[in-house]
Amino acid sequence: MEKIVFNPIGYVRTVAVGEEVKDSVLVCEIVLDSDLVKALEGVAGFSHLFVLFYFNQISTKKPHALVIHPKGRADLPLMGIFGTRTMFRPNRIGLTLVELLKLEGNVLTVRGLDAFDGTPVLDIKPYDPLGLPENARVPSWWAKLYEET
Amino acid sequence: MEKIVFNPIGYVRTVAVGEEVKDSVLVCEIVLDSDLVKALEGVAGFSHLFVLFYFNQISTKKPHALVIHPKGRADLPLMGIFGTRTMFRPNRIGLTLVELLKLEGNVLTVRGLDAFDGTPVLDIKPYDPLGLPENARVPSWWAKLYEET
Repeated sequence: MEKIVFNPIGYVRTVAVGEEVKDSVLVCEIVLDSDLVKALEGVAGFSHLFVLFYFNQISTKKPHALVIHPKGRADLPLMGIFGTRTMFRPNRIGLTLVELLKLEGNVLTVRGLDAFDGTPVLDIKPYDPLGLPENARVPSWWAKLYEET
Repeated sequence: MEKIVFNPIGYVRTVAVGEEVKDSVLVCEIVLDSDLVKALEGVAGFSHLFVLFYFNQISTKKPHALVIHPKGRADLPLMGIFGTRTMFRPNRIGLTLVELLKLEGNVLTVRGLDAFDGTPVLDIKPYDPLGLPENARVPSWWAKLYEET
């Protein structure tokens, strides 16, 4: 299979460290490559964006498990990693829906981006609240986790 | 900036050609690398999945514009590409929410994946309908396009 090569479009800038980054009210910045500023034109018309980023803190040398207990919790069922949001996946791409608070030059201030300082950003895409599926179904462990938080 | 290298986890298999692939009722298959079958365990508990894929039909040699008219329509405003879903973006990653119809071995049958036959798939992630933002805002041109279709 052919390899696919990407270049970061920018980086995450945050003062949060460790588990703090998972705090969904956390505000941080995406500092875009200054050559790409024009590609942000009109983006402030969206209140929410998808951010695709690269989990660069994890060695790709280390083999990953194909099934895990979500959040490392033995009380939750063993799940294939494609049914979880674990960082330990074949291609270490993160996908997070964030709220866009401010866009100034090449800096996007966002809320809810669960990424470490210096994380390479791969893409930014609009969030479309129109035409979302109705009655989407999730496993009971997922709903349980949601209720707990 | 360091380059980021990914390997496809599988491929799209579809009989649709050309613009047909954008038909949202279209059913196609994702054929996963057979080594990864275990990573699909429990995934059928989700009715919908995010599929991340690589727009391999587009030459990366060709420079891309930073602003475009969405859908090539001159009546819509010029937009920075990060506010659109165009394939012509710095990292050619596609992100589509699909409905999972069937999971059998290493083959996922899905509805709504707007990708050509042979498209490399990068990741599969669960769709979480819980805790979606309320009152998310989109630009008027986006809403207009939605109403038209």
